[in-house]
Amino acid sequence: MTDRPGPRERLLTAARDLTYREGVHVGVDAILKEADVARRSLYQHFGGKDGLVAEALRTSGVPERYREAMRRAGDNPRDRILAVFDELEAVTTRPTFRGCRYTSAELALPDPTHPAHAEVRAYKEGLHRLLVDELVRYGHPDPAGAADQLLVLIDGVLVHALTRPDAHPARAARRLAKLLLDAARPAAE
Amino acid sequence: MTDRPGPRERLLTAARDLTYREGVHVGVDAILKEADVARRSLYQHFGGKDGLVAEALRTSGVPERYREAMRRAGDNPRDRILAVFDELEAVTTRPTFRGCRYTSAELALPDPTHPAHAEVRAYKEGLHRLLVDELVRYGHPDPAGAADQLLVLIDGVLVHALTRPDAHPARAARRLAKLLLDAARPAAE
Repeated sequence: MTDRPGPRERLLTAARDLTYREGVHVGVDAILKEADVARRSLYQHFGGKDGLVAEALRTSGVPERYREAMRRAGDNPRDRILAVFDELEAVTTRPTFRGCRYTSAELALPDPTHPAHAEVRAYKEGLHRLLVDELVRYGHPDPAGAADQLLVLIDGVLVHALTRPDAHPARAARRLAKLLLDAARPAAE
Repeated sequence: MTDRPGPRERLLTAARDLTYREGVHVGVDAILKEADVARRSLYQHFGGKDGLVAEALRTSGVPERYREAMRRAGDNPRDRILAVFDELEAVTTRPTFRGCRYTSAELALPDPTHPAHAEVRAYKEGLHRLLVDELVRYGHPDPAGAADQLLVLIDGVLVHALTRPDAHPARAARRLAKLLLDAARPAAE
């Protein structure tokens, strides 16, 4: 007996890996080969490639990475928000960095009914809520609006780092995030 | 005699149109059909689809649109920089908006030697210079660094508007651009 994951997990791992490296247009055959799984399994578990791509996004692990970066930063909401940008600096300077998998899927799938789009929206709304929680604790007078601004920065970093990595867009965005927080500094500070 | 553009222009128009709506993976046949041009012309003028895609990016007209928005805003560098975000609000709220064609190409083409990547870099460097010029006139102490921040905002708006248009990311980004400018307000003001 081995601990080899079952076909469903192998398909998800292969889809996450290949769509990140090659884009969501990577062929089904390449995914099946990397997963070492029969075509039948793909349809049984996900109903087809579209369902697999959507589920691979839903289980990407990206939100957990931001939560973990915040957890490491401690309890202060300001530190926790800025930690997101430190995490982005780490992510975008890795040699394997290929951009944001959610943005890539959003842009590469012109069909608005593709199930991946709902996962992209759910991901962004989840990140928005995560930031709103911190901004409320920080005492920001407009937590939802400020979270919108931070999301624009996050999306911008992940795109800009592809073309101009030497500009260190995560550090540039961190400076703007600090301005945003300082401009709404709670009276108690 | 008609004023119908020649095959080269028709290919560029079709490529700009179809790659924007469908993505850069749109088929060559669809482009040839829309352009009403023989395959031979594509190879004669551009050496193939990759060359056409790159030239379509180089001649997209996007930089001219930013320059025009700045011109309309008058001579004040602060107004001219903020006008970029007003233009982004107009662009991203159009029903035909499908994201930034440069970002889409960058993400959809995993091959780093595809000639489109050089055009994406040239576009971003051109926009950086445009913003640096205004920031120098504004009296910003770090024009290059501030232009990096503005480029992150611009990229972020064009991505975020696809998934959360109701958040009006261009307006959210404009508020951050104002903070950036105010934080470096010239002594003369």
